[in-house]
Amino acid sequence: YQLKADPCGHCLIFNNVNFSRDSDLSTRAGSKVDCDKLEKRFKSLRFHVRTVQDLKAQEIDAELRKLARLDHSALDCCLVVILSHGCQTSHIQFPGGIYGTDGKTIPIEKIVNYFNGSNCPSLRGKPKLFFIQACGGEQKDRGFEVDCESPEDEACRGSVESDATPFQAPPGNSDEPDAVASLPTPGDILVSYSTFPGFVSWRDKLSGSWYVEMLDSVLEQYAHSEDLLTMLVRVASAVSAKGTYKQIPGCFNFLRKKFFFMCK
Amino acid sequence: YQLKADPCGHCLIFNNVNFSRDSDLSTRAGSKVDCDKLEKRFKSLRFHVRTVQDLKAQEIDAELRKLARLDHSALDCCLVVILSHGCQTSHIQFPGGIYGTDGKTIPIEKIVNYFNGSNCPSLRGKPKLFFIQACGGEQKDRGFEVDCESPEDEACRGSVESDATPFQAPPGNSDEPDAVASLPTPGDILVSYSTFPGFVSWRDKLSGSWYVEMLDSVLEQYAHSEDLLTMLVRVASAVSAKGTYKQIPGCFNFLRKKFFFMCK
Repeated sequence: YQLKADPCGHCLIFNNVNFSRDSDLSTRAGSKVDCDKLEKRFKSLRFHVRTVQDLKAQEIDAELRKLARLDHSALDCCLVVILSHGCQTSHIQFPGGIYGTDGKTIPIEKIVNYFNGSNCPSLRGKPKLFFIQACGGEQKDRGFEVDCESPEDEACRGSVESDATPFQAPPGNSDEPDAVASLPTPGDILVSYSTFPGFVSWRDKLSGSWYVEMLDSVLEQYAHSEDLLTMLVRVASAVSAKGTYKQIPGCFNFLRKKFFFMCK
Repeated sequence: YQLKADPCGHCLIFNNVNFSRDSDLSTRAGSKVDCDKLEKRFKSLRFHVRTVQDLKAQEIDAELRKLARLDHSALDCCLVVILSHGCQTSHIQFPGGIYGTDGKTIPIEKIVNYFNGSNCPSLRGKPKLFFIQACGGEQKDRGFEVDCESPEDEACRGSVESDATPFQAPPGNSDEPDAVASLPTPGDILVSYSTFPGFVSWRDKLSGSWYVEMLDSVLEQYAHSEDLLTMLVRVASAVSAKGTYKQIPGCFNFLRKKFFFMCK
């Protein structure tokens, strides 16, 4: 993909930090660090960045539709970043769901589908990128070579929190009429996950999430010279080498070409 | 990943061509072409290749367990190729299911999980590769720029068949006690799909499937110089440019490093 437009595309960042009391979801300390970094990073990579804070599931949905309805004809790509709590979901295409501040979930595949070829014609054939910092579920992976404290030993974890949910995830909002399950023109999509489906994703209260920290650092060092997939392998390598509880980021890639950011 | 062992790893190819009459699944003409090509290709890439033909779901399952139970300590990776009919499934991690010749399905995520870090310790930290040529569902994608005949117009499709199922997919064999839903050590896995989840995958009765044709050709040209992800983007690009019904291969990548085949 050749990015030529400047700005090259919209970048919408959802930063959910404070959740309603009855959602039982904890405050995501450190997420502002993630959000500030990525805002700055994607601005420097020539995106038109907009950040929205603490939205309920329906508001997230509305923002996504609004973005998908824009005319992207003069732009070359589109980027969505989600920083929130997440959960495991059963799904057809892309795994996982993310929480609105009201504790209601939105399936990732619903988010992605707003931007497919039939729902968002002006992005047809153009790369649509999604970066998800959220838990994929509640499983904690201690890794296979690490001999360490039990997952219950909070003291040993210091200020590291997971983006897990403290309770069993409720079923997704499957009652919404527009939950498009099909992708008639499904190409040119990349979804980068901070963690493997079903697993937790770690966040430091001070320095932010492991995934965003590494993503930002890799983008800083390599965005001018390497393609996105290559950089995401670097992120996976760095994150999986970190910490007591192993976390492995990964991506679901349906791009047809290498993606290079624009660097001026 | 540095491959040093020779052979570098096991390669198990499942080639399902003939299905039981009561399964209502058509004979997969052209699949032998795919199978022969990949057998030859992966032998030349220093794999220890074994091919099994026309297995029922339970037999596929048994073969996979047998492979996972082997001692892979002296080997550097492992590769599984599945050539069969497939279907859409609801899942937690990896989408889709494939059919045994008896018309029973096996979820892809079950296949993958036999080889994760906890179930197959001797492959821990080593790349585990899965190549799936099968439908991800029954949706036919005509693409958005193509103005052509209706999907019902068989004459226009010539000898191209889909690996779709002619009927609604039955639910997966979820009653099996060993259907491991969790991946405690989920890294180092790459699943390459011939098509997007939910969509059909095309196969020519004479020259084999589009995906395998392109995969083999790309491996021939680039395996000595490029990493696997880069080559899979080439495959996606070539397949998506082909044919009346658009098909977009993609991959779910949880490898932590670039993967290069061994070429001698």
